[in-house]
Amino acid sequence: MKVDGTPTRTIWLEADGWTVGTIDQRRLPHDYVVVKLTSSDEAADAIRTMLVRGAPLIGATAAYGMALAMREDASDAGLEAAYQKLVATRPTAINLKWALDEMRRALAPVQPADRNAAAYRRAGEIADEDVAINQAIGASGLNLIEAIAATKKPGERVNVLTHCNAGWLATVDWGTATAPIYQAFDAGIPIHVYADETRPRNQGASLTAWELGHHGVDHTVIPDNTGGHLMQHGLVDLVIVGTDRVTADGDVCNKIGTYLKALAAADNKVPFYVALPSPTIDFTIHDGVKEIPIEQREAAEVTDMTGRTRDGRIETVRIVPQGSKVANYGFDVTPARLVTGLITERGVLKADRAALAAAFPERVAQAKELLRAS
Amino acid sequence: MKVDGTPTRTIWLEADGWTVGTIDQRRLPHDYVVVKLTSSDEAADAIRTMLVRGAPLIGATAAYGMALAMREDASDAGLEAAYQKLVATRPTAINLKWALDEMRRALAPVQPADRNAAAYRRAGEIADEDVAINQAIGASGLNLIEAIAATKKPGERVNVLTHCNAGWLATVDWGTATAPIYQAFDAGIPIHVYADETRPRNQGASLTAWELGHHGVDHTVIPDNTGGHLMQHGLVDLVIVGTDRVTADGDVCNKIGTYLKALAAADNKVPFYVALPSPTIDFTIHDGVKEIPIEQREAAEVTDMTGRTRDGRIETVRIVPQGSKVANYGFDVTPARLVTGLITERGVLKADRAALAAAFPERVAQAKELLRAS
Repeated sequence: MKVDGTPTRTIWLEADGWTVGTIDQRRLPHDYVVVKLTSSDEAADAIRTMLVRGAPLIGATAAYGMALAMREDASDAGLEAAYQKLVATRPTAINLKWALDEMRRALAPVQPADRNAAAYRRAGEIADEDVAINQAIGASGLNLIEAIAATKKPGERVNVLTHCNAGWLATVDWGTATAPIYQAFDAGIPIHVYADETRPRNQGASLTAWELGHHGVDHTVIPDNTGGHLMQHGLVDLVIVGTDRVTADGDVCNKIGTYLKALAAADNKVPFYVALPSPTIDFTIHDGVKEIPIEQREAAEVTDMTGRTRDGRIETVRIVPQGSKVANYGFDVTPARLVTGLITERGVLKADRAALAAAFPERVAQAKELLRAS
Repeated sequence: MKVDGTPTRTIWLEADGWTVGTIDQRRLPHDYVVVKLTSSDEAADAIRTMLVRGAPLIGATAAYGMALAMREDASDAGLEAAYQKLVATRPTAINLKWALDEMRRALAPVQPADRNAAAYRRAGEIADEDVAINQAIGASGLNLIEAIAATKKPGERVNVLTHCNAGWLATVDWGTATAPIYQAFDAGIPIHVYADETRPRNQGASLTAWELGHHGVDHTVIPDNTGGHLMQHGLVDLVIVGTDRVTADGDVCNKIGTYLKALAAADNKVPFYVALPSPTIDFTIHDGVKEIPIEQREAAEVTDMTGRTRDGRIETVRIVPQGSKVANYGFDVTPARLVTGLITERGVLKADRAALAAAFPERVAQAKELLRAS
């Protein structure tokens, strides 16, 4: 998507043919800083320190980290050491392990002398595959937006509400929840996005608003408390969110607070969609509320807030009294009954066991295999 | 309630017999600063600048402002001028006008020479009446908490979730939503409160957490996104919130985001209570979503955040990108169907037209009168 008018990805090979460009997302929305990764250590640090974030982007960064590692030591020992270094950076990130497994699988049979070139090639493919999947998600979702636009007066805007950042910044390009939005915008549909601020990490206010603004998409940042009121008053046409994990029955685990928006959507008959690449579906589990453990994150994300002062400095301030405890659950689970549909690269699917199994029979078979083996 | 171990009200007559003590609530939770109001102008400024806030406290401050005015000029013209000055400070605050009307009604028939003493007496009564109403609300709500405590193992805590600040800081003492909590705590029931941060003004994180902490009540500040997850996992026994206005049919207007918590409570069969002094009920309206206009407040409340830096300075930082629009609706409406009960000074009532009319027949008659006259 565009940054200052220029089409940009979140990760790219620089013109020198070996360094890897990326955006320091910790400094958004206040500063747009491009960073060049020149070693596998720098790639590992970029993941560990959350300079890059978002499952697909973490995977692509790890893949390029392996490519950088092959310039440093392309031996079997070097390959294994790079894998171990990179896989330890964010232990719970599924895409990270997937991308590293894929790189190791591709590079192990190759002669060390050829591994460098093969690694850059495969890393580039992994990035391109992510873009293609998100484009396909966008095409699926675009149909939904076009159908709503067709019911409106000419020029009347379509209002989408989203929560957190499932935007292009979390992927290599397009994003998941934002892919239909960008495609609708590019197709000339008058689209407007309500971006939930998304406490406590504020990814909506800082990342979603920033990327929509740069691409030119009309948007309004709202406190997380606001969506229900907007829906009661007919100001939201559809909700599109991303997800970190979907169960075989269609329960959706996503950033904390997603469930509350799904309840409001159901209460006001507003369609509630979840956009996802199909690897996000975990066919080994069924009941999301019971089976998905919810990570508790550090208190400082709730007690402290970082932003820019009027005179331009970046400051962190404490907003909770000293001595008050805080709780910081990272995610919640939206039961499938509240989900209108899952927007995937294979079309828009009903959030239930039969529909998911029919669309991804190979994944169901694989999950059965896994469960049998365990 | 207690501050640093000392029982405290939000407004009081100082030992000198004429200056009025209050707390500068703009500086909470970071600094506890007591202010002495020495003139009607200072009282008016305290209301206008939100040094004091909360409908009942605004009313009491205005009443004391009239008392201070009677020291300055107790003539008929002085009485009228003070009324006009004070009533203009927060034009939409119902309690403000009510308290001022009450003071004028009490003082007009009194000889100017006696108005000063009469004014202090009536202002003191208005403050005491608020305390008595909140105590009665607390007693009604305490029964609910005792009933839940009785179902628990000895020592097992009762978990209450609240939104915004309907605490003693918004009233003269006890608060509305907090009155049952403080009474349960004082009665030795092990009670724990989840306090919603309450974006965008953060009254939960800054005021509710501060006052619960000072009184010694165990509490945890949570992002507004968290309540649904907690309820799904059985971590909330009941919700108690305050309200700015209840319709004759039991619809509840309260701080934005209340509706989302009510939906989550209904979805998880958690009782959802609203605590209120009965003057909050507006018997002239019925459908809250349709009939209550929702105020939009200034963007800075959403874009900016104020807190304390690590080295102790108070700073305001911007957290939304420049160029992004924001929307800031102050309130939302929770339909009566989602409300388990209304905790009033006349007991816990069903949130419906028949129950409210039966409990407050005089108010219904008064509303009919008003509607007929208009």
